[in-house]
Amino acid sequence: MDRGDSLQRLMEALRCLPGVGPRSAQRMAFHLLQQDRDAASRLHQCLGEALEKIRRCRVCRTLTEDEVCGRCCDPRRDRSLLCVVETPADVLAVDQATVFQGLFFVLHGHLSPLDGVGPEDLGLDRLERRLAEGEVKELILATNSTVEGEATAHYIAELARRHGITVSRIAHGVPVGGELEYLDANTLAYAFEGRRQF
Amino acid sequence: MDRGDSLQRLMEALRCLPGVGPRSAQRMAFHLLQQDRDAASRLHQCLGEALEKIRRCRVCRTLTEDEVCGRCCDPRRDRSLLCVVETPADVLAVDQATVFQGLFFVLHGHLSPLDGVGPEDLGLDRLERRLAEGEVKELILATNSTVEGEATAHYIAELARRHGITVSRIAHGVPVGGELEYLDANTLAYAFEGRRQF
Repeated sequence: MDRGDSLQRLMEALRCLPGVGPRSAQRMAFHLLQQDRDAASRLHQCLGEALEKIRRCRVCRTLTEDEVCGRCCDPRRDRSLLCVVETPADVLAVDQATVFQGLFFVLHGHLSPLDGVGPEDLGLDRLERRLAEGEVKELILATNSTVEGEATAHYIAELARRHGITVSRIAHGVPVGGELEYLDANTLAYAFEGRRQF
Repeated sequence: MDRGDSLQRLMEALRCLPGVGPRSAQRMAFHLLQQDRDAASRLHQCLGEALEKIRRCRVCRTLTEDEVCGRCCDPRRDRSLLCVVETPADVLAVDQATVFQGLFFVLHGHLSPLDGVGPEDLGLDRLERRLAEGEVKELILATNSTVEGEATAHYIAELARRHGITVSRIAHGVPVGGELEYLDANTLAYAFEGRRQF
C-alpha cells in the first residue's frame, strides 16, 4: 500500500481510542478500508451523529440526547437516594448489577489538583445546590476505590454532612469468586473489618 | 447515562473494528464522547476522508489515493521481481523488514472455495495477464504460512510456471529469537530441511 496522507491520518486518528497503539491502529485502518467498507461508513455516520446529538444531562451530568436524561425524568425512581459515580459507564454498571432505584450524579472524573481538576470541574457546585434543596436523604459514594476516588469521596462526604445528609460508601471486600490467597492485604483487611454475622 | 439511540448505535458500529467486543466498544464510545471530543471529531473527519479517497491501485491492488500507487510508478524499483502477498499490511511489513526493491501484487485474501473466494476475487486473472507480458522474471510467493495461504501459493505457482517464470517461496524456519523447545514440529522439520552451511 501507499502510505498516502489520508491513510496515515486515519491511523493516527484511531490512536485516540483507549488501548489502541500504532499496530492496532494500522490493523483497524486496513480492516476498515479493505474488508469492511460498509461497516466503516456506518461507523463514520454513527460517530458523526453521536458527536452532534449526545451531551450531558443538565441534572445529573450523564451522557444523553435530551436536555434532562431518562433516569432523572423517571417518576418511579426514588429521589431521596443519590449515588455519586465517576463516569457514565459506572452508571450503567450499577444499573445492570444492582437493584438501586435512586438517582445518579456523574462527576466525569475525580479531584486531581495536580492536573488542575477541582470541585467545579466535577460539578460539585451543582451537586451542593442539589443537596441544599433538601430532597436527597442519603448520598451513596460509589467513586472508584483508588487514591483519587477515595479523596474525592471524602471531599463530597464533608459537603453532604454540612447539609445534614446521611452519607454511605459502597463496601470493600473479597470479590465474588475471588481467592484469599491472591487478594492484596488492604482488601483482606477491609473484608475482615467489614465482616457480617453469617 | 441514558442508553439513547445514537450512543447505542455508535457502540454497535465500533464493534466492526477487529478485536473489539461489546465491552471495549462501550469503553471506546464513552471515551470518544466524554473525554476526547476533539480527537473524536478528528477521527470522524479522517475516516470520512479515507473512505472517500482510498481505493485499490489499478496495477497491484494495494490501497492508495491514486489510480496507480507510488510503488508501481517508482522507476527505481526492479520490475522483474514480483512479490505476491495477501494484504496491504503485508506489503508494509515486507517493505519495513527487507531490502526487497521489486514490485508487489496484493491478493486481498486467499483462495477459499467454501467462502466463495475464487481466483478472480484475488485478481489472479489480472496477475496472469501481467505474467504474460514477460516483464516479470521471478515471482516470490509471500502468502501466509497457513493451509489457505499455502494452497493459494501452490495455485499461483502453477500459473507462473505455465508462463515459464521462476517461482520462489519465502523460507520456513526458526523465528529469530525463538527457542527450539517451544517450536512446533512442522516448523522444526522445515528448519532442518532448509539448513545452510554455517
